[in-house]
Amino acid sequence: MSDQPSAAEEIMDGVYRALRAHGYADVTMQDIADECSKSKSLLHYHYDTKEDLLVAFLDYVITDSEARIRAHADEPPIERLAGFVGWFVFEADAVDREAFHIALLELRTQGPFNERIREQLVRSDRLLRGTVADILESGIENGTFREVDVEETAALVVATLDGARTRQITLTGGDGDGAGDRDEADGAGDSDEADADGDGATAEGGDATAVDDLPEPTYTRRVAEATLQRIVAPLLADGVALPSLEDGIAAMSRDDETE
Amino acid sequence: MSDQPSAAEEIMDGVYRALRAHGYADVTMQDIADECSKSKSLLHYHYDTKEDLLVAFLDYVITDSEARIRAHADEPPIERLAGFVGWFVFEADAVDREAFHIALLELRTQGPFNERIREQLVRSDRLLRGTVADILESGIENGTFREVDVEETAALVVATLDGARTRQITLTGGDGDGAGDRDEADGAGDSDEADADGDGATAEGGDATAVDDLPEPTYTRRVAEATLQRIVAPLLADGVALPSLEDGIAAMSRDDETE
Repeated sequence: MSDQPSAAEEIMDGVYRALRAHGYADVTMQDIADECSKSKSLLHYHYDTKEDLLVAFLDYVITDSEARIRAHADEPPIERLAGFVGWFVFEADAVDREAFHIALLELRTQGPFNERIREQLVRSDRLLRGTVADILESGIENGTFREVDVEETAALVVATLDGARTRQITLTGGDGDGAGDRDEADGAGDSDEADADGDGATAEGGDATAVDDLPEPTYTRRVAEATLQRIVAPLLADGVALPSLEDGIAAMSRDDETE
Repeated sequence: MSDQPSAAEEIMDGVYRALRAHGYADVTMQDIADECSKSKSLLHYHYDTKEDLLVAFLDYVITDSEARIRAHADEPPIERLAGFVGWFVFEADAVDREAFHIALLELRTQGPFNERIREQLVRSDRLLRGTVADILESGIENGTFREVDVEETAALVVATLDGARTRQITLTGGDGDGAGDRDEADGAGDSDEADADGDGATAEGGDATAVDDLPEPTYTRRVAEATLQRIVAPLLADGVALPSLEDGIAAMSRDDETE
């Protein structure tokens, strides 16, 4: 994922593309070999099992996230926090990112059953919460933020953004150009597409107020905006201006799409 | 799930138990038949495929949630909102609920690829956001809440609580009495348990501040408390008291564990 990728990077890029195309449950070592133009036997030389390779991939992704976060460590705390929030936003047409995050979500469902995967998930959770906590501590120290429960705020921010992303990626798809286009088709076709937006049972049976169809604007964008306005803004010391979500998105924009 | 369950209820209870024990990907019609003491042929008489049965189960679960929400519709808005928040809290030892929600999360990862599942997920999302929106509108009308962007707040609250739950259930397990005990064991044993709490790479390599190990107190409890204090409290009109999280949990406590 740099100008002169190493063999390991080429393999990780192959895992990324294969996960997007096939998902966690169905991806095979052959799929990964095909995506990175390596032989399956070469992959097996480095990684005994598919699990070994996927755990190595999680490690690679999290290490990449650490590097991205570290690259912004010297920026003002409020800009870092807005960048963290903006990092989670992606648009409804960000097909590759949605497909990748669906595969990651599949991997996450293995957390309770696979200790090596869970170790990586715990590491990722510590990185995310720890980053927000670090930003808040720096900002309290330099007068950007009021005194606040740093750990509680970090857990709140991470849960909120993760929840928005999970909802966006699981509620979207099947429109012929979204994450729902895996190489293998499942039994359900796109023929009844109109029903997916029907306002069926809840409006009739429940007490729920009719709400608009998400993800327009996307779930992540709407919740990220609310996170800035409702969670971040009250943390600011007097006179500190809240950056816009667009500034936050731009701050963490990346040169590739692997996360 | 009542005193005299119908055959359909018995089957749905069997799906619930079979999903907990085997997960979405691996559960079979035979597993479900075994759990509800029906024959597999009887199940196939009512449901052609496993997908049909799982879609019917999602419909059943969401309809049950609608009924639970409706049962509280006449209560004061602030109590309803605290109850909604408390509904998402479960403790680290709530093994059955965690196992069930892991299976639901697996089902949710099929949203982009399976239109019938996605329709149910969209329906559930509308129920949850619509319920919060309805509570807020009632509360604005009767003077409990200030004027607020109802839809944005609803999306924020739902994303936050869902994210906390997803993080809790995926980061927990493998301790021999958690959700990680499915009937079929995977390749990873429990032998290296101590490593799951190791504070490996992030503390060394990143800029992340060391954070405590969740889920103690549980991710859902911590984030639900923060939701009340940071998101709900600022909505309250002058003089309206914020209920405790314990009150909210008690308000929606249920007589079974199916959601």
